Amino acid sequence: MDDNLIFGRNAVTELLKSGRSVNKIFIAEGSREGSVQKIFALAKTAGVVVEFVKRDKLDRLCDGRHQGVAAVAAAVNYATVEEILSLAESKGEPPFVILLDELEDPQNFGAILRTAEAVGVHGVIIPKRRSVQLNATVFKTSAGAAEYVKVAQVTNVAQTLKNLRGLGLKVVGSDMGAAVDFRQADLSGAIVLIIGSEGKGMRRLTRENCDLLIKIPMVGKINSLNASAAGAVLMYEIFNRRCRAQ
Amino acid sequence: MDDNLIFGRNAVTELLKSGRSVNKIFIAEGSREGSVQKIFALAKTAGVVVEFVKRDKLDRLCDGRHQGVAAVAAAVNYATVEEILSLAESKGEPPFVILLDELEDPQNFGAILRTAEAVGVHGVIIPKRRSVQLNATVFKTSAGAAEYVKVAQVTNVAQTLKNLRGLGLKVVGSDMGAAVDFRQADLSGAIVLIIGSEGKGMRRLTRENCDLLIKIPMVGKINSLNASAAGAVLMYEIFNRRCRAQ
Repeated sequence: MDDNLIFGRNAVTELLKSGRSVNKIFIAEGSREGSVQKIFALAKTAGVVVEFVKRDKLDRLCDGRHQGVAAVAAAVNYATVEEILSLAESKGEPPFVILLDELEDPQNFGAILRTAEAVGVHGVIIPKRRSVQLNATVFKTSAGAAEYVKVAQVTNVAQTLKNLRGLGLKVVGSDMGAAVDFRQADLSGAIVLIIGSEGKGMRRLTRENCDLLIKIPMVGKINSLNASAAGAVLMYEIFNRRCRAQ
Repeated sequence: MDDNLIFGRNAVTELLKSGRSVNKIFIAEGSREGSVQKIFALAKTAGVVVEFVKRDKLDRLCDGRHQGVAAVAAAVNYATVEEILSLAESKGEPPFVILLDELEDPQNFGAILRTAEAVGVHGVIIPKRRSVQLNATVFKTSAGAAEYVKVAQVTNVAQTLKNLRGLGLKVVGSDMGAAVDFRQADLSGAIVLIIGSEGKGMRRLTRENCDLLIKIPMVGKINSLNASAAGAVLMYEIFNRRCRAQ
């Protein structure tokens, strides 16, 4: 699968709206739905080439439900950590940054980007190695949020966290064994929230660079949440504190 | 794919621990990891037949990463709405019920069950038609929570909501256009929380049977969350209110 191939009506619509460079749009012959016509109009406005193809060409190209439309997007542009911090500064807000520590599942990554976009996160940091990267599945699951949220790749997570602490950001990690309930934690101000990998949680070196470890209380037998569910709960808690502080 | 085929080390371990009836365990020849040995021991204790098979047999059987283990579970036992309410009563808690209105994605269903189990939800109600059902993907994504949370199927969602309202439960729906911010809503007492479908949200008839419509505030451009992320945020808000009320 081409990582720059985006498919599905919502995802392609958001891609065209986002202003990201698009090389070509494929539309299945005979697609007459209003949402497809809207994509055609958006593509024309943006000067993007539209090619009508047989539906089974899209079936072959796309690794999932394409609903008759696909787009070939230009290569993904990763941001830098500096650009994420500059965005916060330009908005006059204390930085709100997410760091994904070796997350593996593109659907979790996409869902986290979607929540991050909804709560005004300034950017998401991922490691260059042993981590899911921005790809078509992430884009699709994010419902387009991947186009709007800055994502930076770093080679050394521990060093990045040290640098961010030096700049005054509080590094907060989520850990089942932590003593502090997230509802009682101080989550105000400039913050980096770490979401660990699905199976293993945070790595030791990442944990050692945290200022604060928080836990999400649970009363059942399983005692762990899906990474994107845990991320949503914690991101909304931080968002709530920010709303109240205004 | 056999819907009663469960695979992956965590999912099979939880299945064996749950007490649900298991017909057989498959282990790939040459698997010597500690977690696989633990599964072997659990199966022996439970009197479950273990069959050692070539790894490519598991590749063919399983529709995903099996990590060398799979289980053939007995048919899924759905609960009834009455059993869900009885569970709440036996615990001396006001009922906390989730209703999924035509949810389609098994990964969302699994993640929702996982969060529901973590916050002590008494049961999850799904429609019999046009809804994802309990299957192997749901089980796997739920990390085993599907074994512990009661799931009831109903033929008529609107009638079920009417009945539950008659029994004193408050029916709460989440809707982007609602006037009430969930953080300001009265979410105390006996409650049914409705999570709408991924694409379309709640159906009209479902919405009309709500006592309260709440929204999750968002400040980005996309303006909708993944169903399991929205579910996690709202379930934890209700859980928090319950913790405070104790």
